[in-house]
Amino acid sequence: MIKARVTVTLKNGVLDPQGKAIEGALGSLGFEDVGQVRQGKVFDLELDSADPGTAKQQITAMCEKLLANTVIEDYAVELL
Amino acid sequence: MIKARVTVTLKNGVLDPQGKAIEGALGSLGFEDVGQVRQGKVFDLELDSADPGTAKQQITAMCEKLLANTVIEDYAVELL
Repeated sequence: MIKARVTVTLKNGVLDPQGKAIEGALGSLGFEDVGQVRQGKVFDLELDSADPGTAKQQITAMCEKLLANTVIEDYAVELL
Repeated sequence: MIKARVTVTLKNGVLDPQGKAIEGALGSLGFEDVGQVRQGKVFDLELDSADPGTAKQQITAMCEKLLANTVIEDYAVELL
């Protein structure tokens, strides 16, 4: 079994209102040093596959088809 | 300026209906090797701070106060 982590983040330049809200909330809580905050998603997957190469290919296909919206999001695949 | 990434994931044993839905969707798309899927959140922060130690302390405080629900979630802080 192969474990992997996929991290999906907004591309630079794409507005992130959720991140802005967190930035504001952290400021209100007294964390004045906080600059930009951007929020993304992380997926922890388990694959019943033995070959890391095939697994990585499969996960990339999953990102392209479902996990990420490649118009506005970048993704990174990391085998654990 | 210090950049950091905070990863917030559900603790083991906490139900993750969103992860289950993704698991089902990936299965329907023909990815039959997929086992468990769990979804988490990632926050990319910028801090106007010079000292990595202080920055890490501050970010840990942010996680405890706002970014993570420590009853059901774990968090990891990584300085970039």
